[in-house]
Amino acid sequence: MEAAGQRPGKSKPPGKGIDMTTVQEWNDGVVQQTLDSLVAEEPLEIRVNGAPLSVTMRTPGNDLELAAGFLLTEGIIQNGKQIASLDYVPQEKQPKQNVVDARLTEDAEFDSENLRRNFFAASSCGICGKASIEAVRVRGIRAPNSDFRITPEVLCEIPERLREGQSIFSRTGGLHGAALFDDQGKLIEVREDVGRHNAVDKLIGWALLNQRGDLGNWLMLVSGRGGFEIVQKCLVAGVPLLASVSAPSSLAVRLAREFQMTLVGFLRGRRFVVYGGEQRLGMRSGSSR
Amino acid sequence: MEAAGQRPGKSKPPGKGIDMTTVQEWNDGVVQQTLDSLVAEEPLEIRVNGAPLSVTMRTPGNDLELAAGFLLTEGIIQNGKQIASLDYVPQEKQPKQNVVDARLTEDAEFDSENLRRNFFAASSCGICGKASIEAVRVRGIRAPNSDFRITPEVLCEIPERLREGQSIFSRTGGLHGAALFDDQGKLIEVREDVGRHNAVDKLIGWALLNQRGDLGNWLMLVSGRGGFEIVQKCLVAGVPLLASVSAPSSLAVRLAREFQMTLVGFLRGRRFVVYGGEQRLGMRSGSSR
Repeated sequence: MEAAGQRPGKSKPPGKGIDMTTVQEWNDGVVQQTLDSLVAEEPLEIRVNGAPLSVTMRTPGNDLELAAGFLLTEGIIQNGKQIASLDYVPQEKQPKQNVVDARLTEDAEFDSENLRRNFFAASSCGICGKASIEAVRVRGIRAPNSDFRITPEVLCEIPERLREGQSIFSRTGGLHGAALFDDQGKLIEVREDVGRHNAVDKLIGWALLNQRGDLGNWLMLVSGRGGFEIVQKCLVAGVPLLASVSAPSSLAVRLAREFQMTLVGFLRGRRFVVYGGEQRLGMRSGSSR
Repeated sequence: MEAAGQRPGKSKPPGKGIDMTTVQEWNDGVVQQTLDSLVAEEPLEIRVNGAPLSVTMRTPGNDLELAAGFLLTEGIIQNGKQIASLDYVPQEKQPKQNVVDARLTEDAEFDSENLRRNFFAASSCGICGKASIEAVRVRGIRAPNSDFRITPEVLCEIPERLREGQSIFSRTGGLHGAALFDDQGKLIEVREDVGRHNAVDKLIGWALLNQRGDLGNWLMLVSGRGGFEIVQKCLVAGVPLLASVSAPSSLAVRLAREFQMTLVGFLRGRRFVVYGGEQRLGMRSGSSR
């Protein structure tokens, strides 16, 4: 992990997201009892102005970032300044910290029905992919930084750097990773979680809480596939390029193209597939729309 | 896919869950324009007695199964008999079918706040893993069939059979798969979706809508990792053994052990790890509790 991630007093000690347990391993007929590392999973309740908003299963650690990122990408807030305070809520008889509360400034105009209303407001044609994309547009989301550039050669190198930066994954095999890189392929920050959405929200929340701008000069790499919701979260945060080592869905591609975000899939070795926004890779825009 | 899944008029034609698009492939400096298969993703709105309950992003196909499975595993209904009718709701100007409505019998006592209340009712100690497990218990969920047995040798053969049964995955690389097998390793049914939860709900809904019992004589195999929510869904449906090719989370293991479900991870080649319920594999119960 880059030094950028080592904020004194906020970084979690190694092993924070790991539980140990005894298991039995069957190997070609031979049974062995061994000690196994498990990725930790616990519920996190996110409250807004004291009222419960959501409960999500996550890997403990970077919870305030997760909450901040979630509030932004789900449209509860429009920017980091709308968070007046954000902290854990102490629970009686409960050593673990699984409840956070965000107090918003008055201009945030929080309404717990916002999400739902946004979705349905746009669905004049009913529930469909087009309505899902329109729902993003009515939130005021714009195309990300069109000046961002990265060469294909540099892009090919970043999956290996994500693997190096992932601390828990290598031990448990049970985690999703997400990371931000700059246009020179330098790892800015990495987060891991049992939920891919959470890893992305933690990264976006990290940037939000640290006033690191709108992410317009960084790209995001996620493990696994890129679906609609991951593209949506990155768009809200202003990420110009989203890359994954696996395949995107049809709606993820349509959303990325609609907002001129660069979407890369199957980034493995010296090969990748571009689903839209080729110009940021110095490639000629094809008939991909 | 087994013949069991081929119900006339209900099975989807091949290619249903796939969209085609033109993409650019970068391969070691050479750029080529190619036609790519994308896994389809569209929102599905599930209504209960006419009122919207949830919108989930899913791969179109087997939507009624998805809705039925979702209602059961999320605790809206307790059995299939509580579904009086289940069908698509025609949408104006909308060729695609993205809204389904379930009419429940009067004894279902549906309350949209049920989920939330169940969760918090059990959290006398606050929000934590223990409360999450208690929330499953207060729903009346019991340990699955203790008589189910399968040999390690047969278990090792099923991942290959899932791959053979997955129709879309091999073409798009973007799908999660879930499948039911009997104790002889015979593939009963397979479902695929952009969301792992959806694939599991589709399978459980298929069994529910086809009166295939409580799944107590079958095991479930899922691609990717097994988290708390997947274990929970399988427990609700009475599945005695859940296997995955990757790692489970800490809370998934605790939940499985609490309900004496057999949980297998890293099922690859001639090797796997057992996290609980070893007796169903003819293995001596170790100190895994």
